[in-house]
Amino acid sequence: MAPTELILPGATSIIMNPESFPCQLISWDEAYQLSRKLARVIKSSGFRPDLVIAIGRGGYVPARIVCDFLLHSLLTSIKIEHWDIAACKRPEAAVRFPLAVDVRDQKVLIIDDVTDTGDTLRAALGYLNTLGAGETKTAVMQHKTSSAVVPDFYADVIKDWKWIIYPWAAHEDLVGFTDKVLSAEYATRDHILARLKEQYTLIVDENCLAEVLDDLIDMKKAEEFHDKFRKIR
Amino acid sequence: MAPTELILPGATSIIMNPESFPCQLISWDEAYQLSRKLARVIKSSGFRPDLVIAIGRGGYVPARIVCDFLLHSLLTSIKIEHWDIAACKRPEAAVRFPLAVDVRDQKVLIIDDVTDTGDTLRAALGYLNTLGAGETKTAVMQHKTSSAVVPDFYADVIKDWKWIIYPWAAHEDLVGFTDKVLSAEYATRDHILARLKEQYTLIVDENCLAEVLDDLIDMKKAEEFHDKFRKIR
Repeated sequence: MAPTELILPGATSIIMNPESFPCQLISWDEAYQLSRKLARVIKSSGFRPDLVIAIGRGGYVPARIVCDFLLHSLLTSIKIEHWDIAACKRPEAAVRFPLAVDVRDQKVLIIDDVTDTGDTLRAALGYLNTLGAGETKTAVMQHKTSSAVVPDFYADVIKDWKWIIYPWAAHEDLVGFTDKVLSAEYATRDHILARLKEQYTLIVDENCLAEVLDDLIDMKKAEEFHDKFRKIR
Repeated sequence: MAPTELILPGATSIIMNPESFPCQLISWDEAYQLSRKLARVIKSSGFRPDLVIAIGRGGYVPARIVCDFLLHSLLTSIKIEHWDIAACKRPEAAVRFPLAVDVRDQKVLIIDDVTDTGDTLRAALGYLNTLGAGETKTAVMQHKTSSAVVPDFYADVIKDWKWIIYPWAAHEDLVGFTDKVLSAEYATRDHILARLKEQYTLIVDENCLAEVLDDLIDMKKAEEFHDKFRKIR
């Protein structure tokens, strides 16, 4: 989920300013160790899934790693998206790409990266239920206590809410955050880096920022003039 | 693909002893940089897919990373497996988990980790063709020149065949290789590590080996006696 799709205060009881909140960048090694630990937790529970389902897109990497340690070959995916429903205070999670596999009476393990509100796991569980799946368990690397759904398995608990940036989503997340810190006034790269640090506790590499600004310009969300950048209204 | 499923000499023109061949372990950082480079190659080609399809299981991680740099949300997967056909000299690639998405006239980007014989990409392309997909391109991190199919996009070319171990498949690959180096005679951990190095150019961490041996014992493929290990016939 990109930060532009952030489910903000309405979704949870957290009082949070959407213009400034703490972020944490997870390294590849940390994500690997979390997924490896998650696999151990699942293994020691005795649950042996017939099928592993990655929730797209966040669950792709942890699900692949968990399958490695479970020596599990049968991996597939569903895509769950969050839609803004005009009448609702918060986006609604719904299955965008369904399953093409018969799950009736199968033991299913659903894997995502993180719980935030819990809406994604709830939508996945409801969907698997309508398909007649057998015993269905959920697993995430990191479980935020802000989530209304507690997954069956997790490697880490996060009590103080923060936005977690996984390495496979770092570019897109950074595009979202940089878009937020740009304003109608032109700003230098140093200014932008300082705002990312101040508002989102993010320390960003200059090369990464260059790639992000290129994308924002390509998308006609930003413009450059004499090495300074501003948002296009 | 685990090394136990290795497509050996019959599949390509490589003369190779299945009991000993060079392996290379790719780190998370290397896999990330390869996927990032792959995204740049795709982007600079001007090809803008409507849908990205990861080939399971090897394509899950590179496809997720490529989607990050392409800022592409629509990611799904198919699973392709290699089946041993009694009458054939080599396994046949076939779709195990199909697509649940309408791809008619869609521009599709298929992503896998590596080409080896090219059978996987050929099966994927044939399958997408039967579904009436529009322009369909293939992309891998590493293209081996042993492959009969040349992907449209790749980040790296491998001319001297070797088995590449990706970080998301390291445990399973190591289980396969350790199973191969075990014999009917009991061997110490040091002996096993030495054989892995000699036969497969693999330098393996002791903790990883411990986890691998545990799995082989659980699977009743190996047994332990006084800190020594042997294959169960």
